[in-house]
Amino acid sequence: MKAKKDSIVSLFQPKSVAIVGASSQPGKIGFSITRNIIQGGFKGKIYPINPKGGAILGVNCYPSISDVKDEIDVATICVPAKFAFDAVKECADKGVKHVQIITSGFSEVGEVELEHKIVEYANSKGTRVLGPNIFGVYSASGNYNSTFSATDILRGNVAILTQSGALGIAMIGKTAVENMGLSAIVSLGNKADIDEADCLDFVMRDQETKVILMYIEGVKDGERFIEAVREATKLKPIVVLKSGRSKRGAMAAASHTGSLAGSDEIFDAIARQTGLLRAESLQEAFNWCKFLAYSPRPKGKNTVIVTNGGGIGVMATDACEKYGVELYDDQLVLKEVFGPATPDFGSTKNPVDITGGAKAADYDLALTAPTRSEDMHATLALYCETATFDAENLAPMIRDTYGKHLASGKPVAYAIVGGKVVEDAVVQLRKMNVPVFPEVYEAVSCMGALYKYTNMLVERDDSVDDAQIDIATINKIIDGALADGRTFLLANEGQAVMKASGVMIPGAGIGKSIDECVRFAEQIGYPVVMKVVSRDILHKSDAGGVALDILNKQEVMDAYEAIMKNCRAYKEDAVIDGIEVCEMVQKGVELIIGARRDPQLGPIVMCGLGGIYVEVMKDVAFRAASMNKKEARSMLSEIRSYPLLLGVRGEEQKDIDIVVDTIIKVATIIRKIPRITDIEINPVVVYEQGKGLKAVDVRIIISKS
Amino acid sequence: MKAKKDSIVSLFQPKSVAIVGASSQPGKIGFSITRNIIQGGFKGKIYPINPKGGAILGVNCYPSISDVKDEIDVATICVPAKFAFDAVKECADKGVKHVQIITSGFSEVGEVELEHKIVEYANSKGTRVLGPNIFGVYSASGNYNSTFSATDILRGNVAILTQSGALGIAMIGKTAVENMGLSAIVSLGNKADIDEADCLDFVMRDQETKVILMYIEGVKDGERFIEAVREATKLKPIVVLKSGRSKRGAMAAASHTGSLAGSDEIFDAIARQTGLLRAESLQEAFNWCKFLAYSPRPKGKNTVIVTNGGGIGVMATDACEKYGVELYDDQLVLKEVFGPATPDFGSTKNPVDITGGAKAADYDLALTAPTRSEDMHATLALYCETATFDAENLAPMIRDTYGKHLASGKPVAYAIVGGKVVEDAVVQLRKMNVPVFPEVYEAVSCMGALYKYTNMLVERDDSVDDAQIDIATINKIIDGALADGRTFLLANEGQAVMKASGVMIPGAGIGKSIDECVRFAEQIGYPVVMKVVSRDILHKSDAGGVALDILNKQEVMDAYEAIMKNCRAYKEDAVIDGIEVCEMVQKGVELIIGARRDPQLGPIVMCGLGGIYVEVMKDVAFRAASMNKKEARSMLSEIRSYPLLLGVRGEEQKDIDIVVDTIIKVATIIRKIPRITDIEINPVVVYEQGKGLKAVDVRIIISKS
Repeated sequence: MKAKKDSIVSLFQPKSVAIVGASSQPGKIGFSITRNIIQGGFKGKIYPINPKGGAILGVNCYPSISDVKDEIDVATICVPAKFAFDAVKECADKGVKHVQIITSGFSEVGEVELEHKIVEYANSKGTRVLGPNIFGVYSASGNYNSTFSATDILRGNVAILTQSGALGIAMIGKTAVENMGLSAIVSLGNKADIDEADCLDFVMRDQETKVILMYIEGVKDGERFIEAVREATKLKPIVVLKSGRSKRGAMAAASHTGSLAGSDEIFDAIARQTGLLRAESLQEAFNWCKFLAYSPRPKGKNTVIVTNGGGIGVMATDACEKYGVELYDDQLVLKEVFGPATPDFGSTKNPVDITGGAKAADYDLALTAPTRSEDMHATLALYCETATFDAENLAPMIRDTYGKHLASGKPVAYAIVGGKVVEDAVVQLRKMNVPVFPEVYEAVSCMGALYKYTNMLVERDDSVDDAQIDIATINKIIDGALADGRTFLLANEGQAVMKASGVMIPGAGIGKSIDECVRFAEQIGYPVVMKVVSRDILHKSDAGGVALDILNKQEVMDAYEAIMKNCRAYKEDAVIDGIEVCEMVQKGVELIIGARRDPQLGPIVMCGLGGIYVEVMKDVAFRAASMNKKEARSMLSEIRSYPLLLGVRGEEQKDIDIVVDTIIKVATIIRKIPRITDIEINPVVVYEQGKGLKAVDVRIIISKS
Repeated sequence: MKAKKDSIVSLFQPKSVAIVGASSQPGKIGFSITRNIIQGGFKGKIYPINPKGGAILGVNCYPSISDVKDEIDVATICVPAKFAFDAVKECADKGVKHVQIITSGFSEVGEVELEHKIVEYANSKGTRVLGPNIFGVYSASGNYNSTFSATDILRGNVAILTQSGALGIAMIGKTAVENMGLSAIVSLGNKADIDEADCLDFVMRDQETKVILMYIEGVKDGERFIEAVREATKLKPIVVLKSGRSKRGAMAAASHTGSLAGSDEIFDAIARQTGLLRAESLQEAFNWCKFLAYSPRPKGKNTVIVTNGGGIGVMATDACEKYGVELYDDQLVLKEVFGPATPDFGSTKNPVDITGGAKAADYDLALTAPTRSEDMHATLALYCETATFDAENLAPMIRDTYGKHLASGKPVAYAIVGGKVVEDAVVQLRKMNVPVFPEVYEAVSCMGALYKYTNMLVERDDSVDDAQIDIATINKIIDGALADGRTFLLANEGQAVMKASGVMIPGAGIGKSIDECVRFAEQIGYPVVMKVVSRDILHKSDAGGVALDILNKQEVMDAYEAIMKNCRAYKEDAVIDGIEVCEMVQKGVELIIGARRDPQLGPIVMCGLGGIYVEVMKDVAFRAASMNKKEARSMLSEIRSYPLLLGVRGEEQKDIDIVVDTIIKVATIIRKIPRITDIEINPVVVYEQGKGLKAVDVRIIISKS
């Protein structure tokens, strides 16, 4: 039983806190935490718990938590692991809302049972558990610093949720150096109970938080995670740093569908789908957070580059393509706007080159121009140190033009390259939160993140399309297979699941007479294939039990008799159950459509072109299964071989609408039928527009639970 | 006529220099350069040239260059563009070895003619030209600073060749800030005469230069460039920063083969082929240069990561995959080596986690261990700031363990993350040239560059394989086509070029009688196709003039008579030249093999799988045409669809040897026959191992010059 999520607020803004294992001995964690809470200006009540009594920095200790009469919102547990259960039990029995277990030595070293027991007991009393194996929580709005690391955390507007404690503590240090203040930081550790989804619920509503930074190593409940992230990214940008990109770092994926690509590729797809901004490195994540926290959002896609050097202008152009920043191209407007600031041997084309002779006043002119133009929405300002620039004016010029951009509600990022003067300007301006970088790629990367977030808000559509599927029938098929002792479905059962979901499959029927076979053939439509159905005949072709490419009624009748005759001759006493009449699937573009329940990320779907494309070229796309048709379409268009569906070499376009429908059907199956763990339709043969598709071969894996 | 390349030394280490346009007026370029040469400690003779006479900083001016009696190695030209020709002419007439034209206003603003005229005149007198549109040359070994930018350039071991002047000046500033001293810097500007290839010849031999950094926007003479780079990378690492990665930045490629991919992809392939280390950003280039200049080369591929935090350990693992750094994996050895430094709850697996409790002494123990192990060749040392670390020992610990690594001849890179203490340590240690980075990805990227260079030295093989091709015959074919007024070859001419190069083509012959046709068919081998050859019959099939799938002599005779009869019936008076007997090309894997003369990079070859793979998947690889079979093989293995040649789905391996031979043949054609500008063989049908290939369709574009 999990407590209501509203209560998460009191984890960050408690009214009363206890420290179980508080100590008066400097150097001990139980001392550091008590000191940090007291000296951090916490306004609520503080109850250090120590059986020996005494006082810490003037605050009296209580011998045990049960001696505290007051209600307690958060109890910090810093006793050794072997005493942790008893400590948590006492807290839970008293009705403490949250315990945060600093102590390590649980599931991270294999002590899974102990951790589980603690959480189970706590939850049974309505107590939520943060950790274990954490460094604590800081919240600016709560004036609350229950970490054991830093006494003085720089206050600001970025909230950090971190799975790694060590990195979290280091990040607190780095935030101060980078002048990137924090609104909150929470160490999630083993995530035995409280996880990112819970904490997002607080930080996304927290007034002081403008940007959220998450460091993740693995997700535990993918569906909840995705839902929470979707809610939060609507309100605030979330920058995510997820390690385990590499094969070595990532866990080996279990099923065939997953093994097509590392699960990192899946995480990446889901990050894009849910609007997360995924940074590669810590520095990139910090740059983005700070930029996103202070920059206005662009009101259109037109970016201009202003530079005094051609070389860095070209580099910035390259970076714009890499980070998805679009450059404005109307030569006439550019000339009109930048003409007055550009000498004749410069260029008003974008990148606008005001040349190496430009002084601060020229920059001021050139950088004021786009703030006044309705056609320009964002600026990248580049500066190369020159022999002639009036260096003392560099920082003031940047500060001023930054102010003008802010005033006009337009974002700008600066990249300045050079020696001491430039270095000093970078240090000085970054202290004032002016986005100045010593590297072109860093500046453009920030602008790219800002555009990615802004565009996502405009384009996002979180609606989920549910296909009509016959759940009862599918469950009955699964019941049957499980009763049969199988964890997979037979080919015909798979086809039945497709049929129950409205996915087009090749027609088929087993006739017990010539007339029945003819009826099936006429229903299915010619050409058809006929095959003997007999448990006594394993090698149907050898027995003359197969007839291909049957074109009309007469041929069905002839084939029926020939097959019967051949099979009798092959094995006189064979029991023949009938003859299967199947549609002969015509050639088309072969796709693979699959879905699986990812152990971390929950139900996901994948698609790609079949055969070589998926096996050799690894050309597949992934999405979380809670998706709509628009998303399915974007997923399809992501595969490199997508032009084959649009039609190449004079071919007609393929029936993309029906592929999209089929993806949604498969997504619906994996979401609504929990006992199905894997689906792979391979091949799905797709025909020209309006002519549909055929799900030829379907493999489905099931589980009992 | 270009002067001998030996003389390039005197551009960097002149004995006597003149400054044409020298000025005594501070602020003028003619003053700055004179001052910098004088104050830079130049030991040779200095002749400021100014018609007004006088003296600059105590050095007497000469009214004109012809008044100087001494020989002059370098004359710097800083008079306005309109006077530049006369100034250069005077220098050339006097026999000055080099002129460096600082002045701008030439080809970069469309004044191509003037620039050309200057170079032509200078070269005709044996004078080489640097520039125009440059900031000058600095050379530590020459005690020579003829730039107009910096008075005090930090002396060191990195040589920079830069096409962009503005960026070059900014880089000089940045080298001082980054404590990355320079052995030389040369501004190449418009590269009207002297280019990277010339300057490489000096810096690769220069004793003070350990690493070369090139900033390139475009290459002019690709073949020379490639040859020079190949020579230089044997001796020293070259880091290259080439802008124009993006489509927008890159010039549109001309021919079909090239249009398959931006020419940046070609540059990238050639960079790898010639051993260049291509950095993406300026910061990355600087990091690599400094690291390569001071690090010993690893003696094997086993790298270990030592960390006090799991999170950054995983991030470093990700980065190792990205940058091609291999992690050592022998668990027993790792345990033996790192066991003593790792607590029980840590991990001796790679990344070795000595845990957040590690003190400086523990790091010292853990980082000394790999220097003593024969199995470990490189170390990545990571540190996350913790609440318990003895911070004052951080910098000394890093300095000491760095020293131990240097002493044992093993490279190490440090990434340290945290607050003020860490920031201060980074600043302090970087001043001592210890490779410490505030970001895991930066440290690993440096180690990756070092490995890339080291591996390249081991693996490189610059030999060029020449195929036997019949140049005389090919030239005769080209003569014929040009005489015919064509700039392309007809299908049969293309086939003839293939034949003259020994490329396997489908057999064919035109028979004028039944006997002749039978003879061709027997020579070619069945099945064959027969087609009427008549200028009067355009639609051969309509006329009944084509017979497919002919299997034996009798069928040839029957087909001959049938075709003759049909064609007579179709058009009674048609002149029939004979009947073409062609091999029926069997199905196989279709490739495309092409070559072209890139306007910048010279002769290049490309290959890829044909059809969809090249058209839709853009799955092609490029190389400079001066290559050997090993390189052709590596090129083939680079395409994503390469597994199709190895055989997938139970198919046999294809005849890769013959594909490699064919690539070498095509490479030889493009190198040896200057009038051929483009070759595209598409499809090349490849069969199973030992069964060869067929070059089915060949398109060749030719030019007169």
